[in-house]
Amino acid sequence: MLEWFNKKGPEGEIVLSTRIRLARNINEYPFPVRLDAKQKEQVCEKIKEAMLNSNSCIAKDFQYLKMDTLSNAQAIAMAEHHLISPEFATNTQSRGLLINKDSSVSIMLCEEDHIRLQVMKSGFDLDSAYELADKIDTLLDNSLHFAFDEKLGYLTQCPTNLGTGMRASVMLHLPALTKCGQINSLATTISKLGLTIRGAYGEGTQPQGDIYQLSNQVSLGISEKAAIDNLKSITKQVIAQEEKLREQMKNDDEVIDKIWRSLGILKNARILNTAEFMELISFVRMGICLGIVDFDIETINTLISQMQPATINANLEKALTPKERDLYRAEKVRQAFN
Amino acid sequence: MLEWFNKKGPEGEIVLSTRIRLARNINEYPFPVRLDAKQKEQVCEKIKEAMLNSNSCIAKDFQYLKMDTLSNAQAIAMAEHHLISPEFATNTQSRGLLINKDSSVSIMLCEEDHIRLQVMKSGFDLDSAYELADKIDTLLDNSLHFAFDEKLGYLTQCPTNLGTGMRASVMLHLPALTKCGQINSLATTISKLGLTIRGAYGEGTQPQGDIYQLSNQVSLGISEKAAIDNLKSITKQVIAQEEKLREQMKNDDEVIDKIWRSLGILKNARILNTAEFMELISFVRMGICLGIVDFDIETINTLISQMQPATINANLEKALTPKERDLYRAEKVRQAFN
Repeated sequence: MLEWFNKKGPEGEIVLSTRIRLARNINEYPFPVRLDAKQKEQVCEKIKEAMLNSNSCIAKDFQYLKMDTLSNAQAIAMAEHHLISPEFATNTQSRGLLINKDSSVSIMLCEEDHIRLQVMKSGFDLDSAYELADKIDTLLDNSLHFAFDEKLGYLTQCPTNLGTGMRASVMLHLPALTKCGQINSLATTISKLGLTIRGAYGEGTQPQGDIYQLSNQVSLGISEKAAIDNLKSITKQVIAQEEKLREQMKNDDEVIDKIWRSLGILKNARILNTAEFMELISFVRMGICLGIVDFDIETINTLISQMQPATINANLEKALTPKERDLYRAEKVRQAFN
Repeated sequence: MLEWFNKKGPEGEIVLSTRIRLARNINEYPFPVRLDAKQKEQVCEKIKEAMLNSNSCIAKDFQYLKMDTLSNAQAIAMAEHHLISPEFATNTQSRGLLINKDSSVSIMLCEEDHIRLQVMKSGFDLDSAYELADKIDTLLDNSLHFAFDEKLGYLTQCPTNLGTGMRASVMLHLPALTKCGQINSLATTISKLGLTIRGAYGEGTQPQGDIYQLSNQVSLGISEKAAIDNLKSITKQVIAQEEKLREQMKNDDEVIDKIWRSLGILKNARILNTAEFMELISFVRMGICLGIVDFDIETINTLISQMQPATINANLEKALTPKERDLYRAEKVRQAFN
């Protein structure tokens, strides 16, 4: 189901996935914040029809979900997989989601903007992610007519999205940069270049699993291509730094020890909370990339997505207590490794 | 070589070993503290001959070591195995050791007293340890004539050893009492009964591996039999308490988790210092006794004795740095478990 996340794509040892997000609004309606429930439902219905009634073969792959028909766990699980925003998962009233079969394309309806279109790809694959996003954008624009200003570009509720309405991002596994304490200075440098990097897991707490989201912040006065090229070139530099540090760590007894211990605990623990699981799996994932541990990296990716707390509850269709969940997680992780 | 330690004897899940120690002095010489180097060597020679020239079949099994011919690591390794006192290991000048083939009997010459005879047995076996100690005592007394006073009993340098000159002790593995924080109150109770309990590993620091030495403190005004019976009955009570707590812990998810994690780390770590090794092996040893982990307890005992720092150096005939030793320990432990 989450092939775009689990599969090892280009540069997959460091880049877990690529995402293109476009914010769009329909000309004839105010932004969602100005709509009442009924109007929002009209907007959702309109966009849903534009997609599902189109003759495009892309559209055949989509289904429509009214967000308030999902359980709380199902909605939060989607946010854990970065398919929707955490805010969209908690406020589901009068909102809809168009999602394709493998969850690589999701379209939030009546989030901050009428349309938040996301395309995800395995590994480092900005061009093909943008290409697909652009196709769907064109498809929808044909029947919906997006709010567009000659000077400002696409109009969005938040001015930070004006212009292209695009955020391009890559999800990076950066254990070496994190363990060496270089993440903070990297974040400072990156912010000067108009990009931002932040933890992709563990909202509001410490980044978990050394997994980060690197994204462009500027959408005004820059073309999509320029923004993507910029992100591409900085990502390549981050990859190079991470690779260099990993290479140095390869012969560090203490790092090797931590990798093996992490594997030993994952293979044997009977209780595993999310934060510890993410810390251990990060070491093991790096160990695989360094050729220290022989294990399948796609299974690791799958565990990272499947062992998140709400995803566990959603898959079991049952609200486990945190203790029950930690026991369940440990059991599933043992099964995967043994 | 250390069969008395490694082998699982009576009550071997909790009692690692039993020891009887007798302090004796030869009538015609002052205590060692009053002897010069030459006189000490005479005393050593005299006792050595009394043993090796006797016609007893017990004696055939002994060899004599001049302590100053041992390397520092060899001497400290003997102290780690409780064959000699730590003080005897560091001041080796003009001192000798009679030791039998399996190291179950050791006789320190010119330690605090002329003779410190120790008999060790696997598990909980006070009677047979005392029986053998008594035989060797008689054998030596026949030719050496021990300092003995009708009122005070055997004369010893330190008045706390007057009387029987005997210390009887058992080495106990008490993980459950330790984890539950009951060791300190147990120690207080025990001291009121004329016994003492202290860590058997990790001199001067925290007790390591939850292994303790329980011994009688009173040697004056009490017969050997009464002292042994007293120790025996208190040991049985301690065993019962430990067993009861272990039984309670058996179904505790957190304890089970700790046991499995400990095994996972021992099987995988690349660096293991003594303190951590002892902590982990203690959990695994308890896990075996509780039927949670399936592994040979005698291999665990052997690891405990063989993975002590000086023992590693002595076996390799090489002084490793602490870092090298921790790498070596981790490797040997992995081999034992995999």
